[in-house]
Amino acid sequence: MTTEKSLIDSALRGWKSNIEEADKLFGGLSPEQLEQEVAPGKNRLIYLWGHLAAVNDRLLPLLGIGERLHPEFDDMFISNPDNSVQLTVSGQILKAAWQEINQKLGEGIAKFSASDWAERHTAVSEQDFEREPHRNRFAVLLGRTAHLAYHVGQAALAQRKT
Amino acid sequence: MTTEKSLIDSALRGWKSNIEEADKLFGGLSPEQLEQEVAPGKNRLIYLWGHLAAVNDRLLPLLGIGERLHPEFDDMFISNPDNSVQLTVSGQILKAAWQEINQKLGEGIAKFSASDWAERHTAVSEQDFEREPHRNRFAVLLGRTAHLAYHVGQAALAQRKT
Repeated sequence: MTTEKSLIDSALRGWKSNIEEADKLFGGLSPEQLEQEVAPGKNRLIYLWGHLAAVNDRLLPLLGIGERLHPEFDDMFISNPDNSVQLTVSGQILKAAWQEINQKLGEGIAKFSASDWAERHTAVSEQDFEREPHRNRFAVLLGRTAHLAYHVGQAALAQRKT
Repeated sequence: MTTEKSLIDSALRGWKSNIEEADKLFGGLSPEQLEQEVAPGKNRLIYLWGHLAAVNDRLLPLLGIGERLHPEFDDMFISNPDNSVQLTVSGQILKAAWQEINQKLGEGIAKFSASDWAERHTAVSEQDFEREPHRNRFAVLLGRTAHLAYHVGQAALAQRKT
């Protein structure tokens, strides 16, 4: 394996392992458990899960993989804080969307070559990218991996209702 | 910049930005604030900070940079859960150690070439590494970045005592 491939392989393994961690934490929860706050007065589990799903969905156009699958998630899970907008998705629908998004994302990123990863993401102009070559797809993947871990750490704190 | 260098640059930026996030969260807290739990019955801020310092300290030998600076942290912050061992460090001492560890670590990793990053870390044997080439230094850096983000996310939940 070349050095480039080895570096990318490590990053993809890290991404997948954090997705799996989130799967384990959220995937088996009942509707009541998803209502639980991670700490008193803080986000509910369903909000964090929806937030992570929406952020992954946004990666599809950002990485140039394709159109978004669930742009309607932004209003509920990104643009507004928890409990300020009525959620129109159940845990079951969210679970299906989460899997669908990650499937499409996984297929897309599996096709990237090393130089694809070092290319600019779609939210940076060619001109800006010349000055700031670190604003590449790889940085997006790493940033989103850390973002995922950040919220998974919070979700792990919730005292589960049985 | 070559593709390899660009990938590594992204990872180092991610690492540093998470360290800075932790600096901001923990660095200015009073001894009383450091006693605060991140959620009821969960780890105290001082424990999480010490845990992150100890994990970074362990990176020094793991990445082949040098000897550990604070092996005495493991008993308080890694091998035992919070509140089970008397802490013998104050917030002030911890802050100095955190900075000292990250300084030495930062200097060490700044010297790594792309192929250094793709090399095995010291906890994997040459033989195992042949079968599992993803157990490299780069994977360690990415894993620890996610680990840092995981606990920073938790620390961000604490209701600060003023």
